[in-house]
Amino acid sequence: MTEIKRIGVGARMSDAVIHGATVYLAGQVADDPSADVKGQTQQVLDAIDRLLAQARSDKTKILQAQIFLANIADFAAMNQVWDAWVPEGHTPARATVEAKSKSSLLARARLAPARLIDQLYGCRLPCPDCCYGQLVSLKATHGV
Amino acid sequence: MTEIKRIGVGARMSDAVIHGATVYLAGQVADDPSADVKGQTQQVLDAIDRLLAQARSDKTKILQAQIFLANIADFAAMNQVWDAWVPEGHTPARATVEAKSKSSLLARARLAPARLIDQLYGCRLPCPDCCYGQLVSLKATHGV
Amino acid sequence: MTEIKRIGVGARMSDAVIHGATVYLAGQVADDPSADVKGQTQQVLDAIDRLLAQARSDKTKILQAQIFLANIADFAAMNQVWDAWVPEGHTPARATVEAKSKSSLLARARLAPARLIDQLYGCRLPCPDCCYGQLVSLKATHGV
Repeated sequence: MTEIKRIGVGARMSDAVIHGATVYLAGQVADDPSADVKGQTQQVLDAIDRLLAQARSDKTKILQAQIFLANIADFAAMNQVWDAWVPEGHTPARATVEAKSKSSLLARARLAPARLIDQLYGCRLPCPDCCYGQLVSLKATHGV
Repeated sequence: MTEIKRIGVGARMSDAVIHGATVYLAGQVADDPSADVKGQTQQVLDAIDRLLAQARSDKTKILQAQIFLANIADFAAMNQVWDAWVPEGHTPARATVEAKSKSSLLARARLAPARLIDQLYGCRLPCPDCCYGQLVSLKATHGV
Repeated sequence: MTEIKRIGVGARMSDAVIHGATVYLAGQVADDPSADVKGQTQQVLDAIDRLLAQARSDKTKILQAQIFLANIADFAAMNQVWDAWVPEGHTPARATVEAKSKSSLLARARLAPARLIDQLYGCRLPCPDCCYGQLVSLKATHGV
């Protein structure tokens, strides 16, 4: 069974949902909506970093990002902060469009968690109970 | 092979697409666009419930939801209906932005189906090193 | 480990990210923004076809599509090109909303790659034919 694990479960939404090898983040907005676009972008990316750490992943494993900007004219300012944050060689598939939300900027991401990836082999049973572990043991013990 | 199964296949889109342990729903809009925001939200959530049942899943397994509101001012009214619908302890990662569609509200969801999850075990090692390949070899060589 | 493979890795984003059995495409826009909506739609779908080929997949395996139209009034014109492109019987879950981007139309897609799908076997065999089931049977029958 592919377990669903939720982080920061609220009455309305969860901050992150881990399902198999994929983590889904809720839309992140800046805590301080009075900051300018660069400031808000940094706050959103900081919030994403914190969530990634909770999901035992990091920004080198982001698969896809969706950015909603309240004003598409802020595209360049947002990108300045984004470009400094996104790790070289590990950039996600991204799409940016203009759409109002409760903030100037809302970003969401989908990523691969570090922890769960390591478990993705075998029968999904904990090692050495997985079938592969049992085969190894069978061969070692009985020489077959 | 990870099978792709489509539900409600139309010429333009399918209502839902099941791939491995994930179900992708098409954007759902209200059947009756004359209803108010609460009414439309309820219709959309009812449509999602129906699709989830067809995919043999349910709302406790929603991973991620994307809500597009024609008018972000309807945020609170939409949330009243949402909050009553979403199951405690199983809330999805969610993002809500303002965007016009063919309706006042369009919601899409990504979820884990009940049925297919149970089929997700298996090894992911290259054949014939995978446990199944080794079992076949074990039987062939040792006659056990 | 579920490998992450990136295609067209840029400093800001990657054109596509392959993770397990899923490919995530970056938002695609028309190369020639002077074209009309039909022309831009065709350019976007052509770009998607090219990316799918690079990911060793094709348009029969699209799971989900998100279309952002700068003007929702272009819905019918976009659909004319879309309907001619999308393969019968393999239509994705789709959502279309109005949202400005750097182009008249931005589309993104999530799909299943042909190549990786073939690697996703493992035990996915019905019980008790799966490797785990066979191990249990092997032990019970032969006492090993």
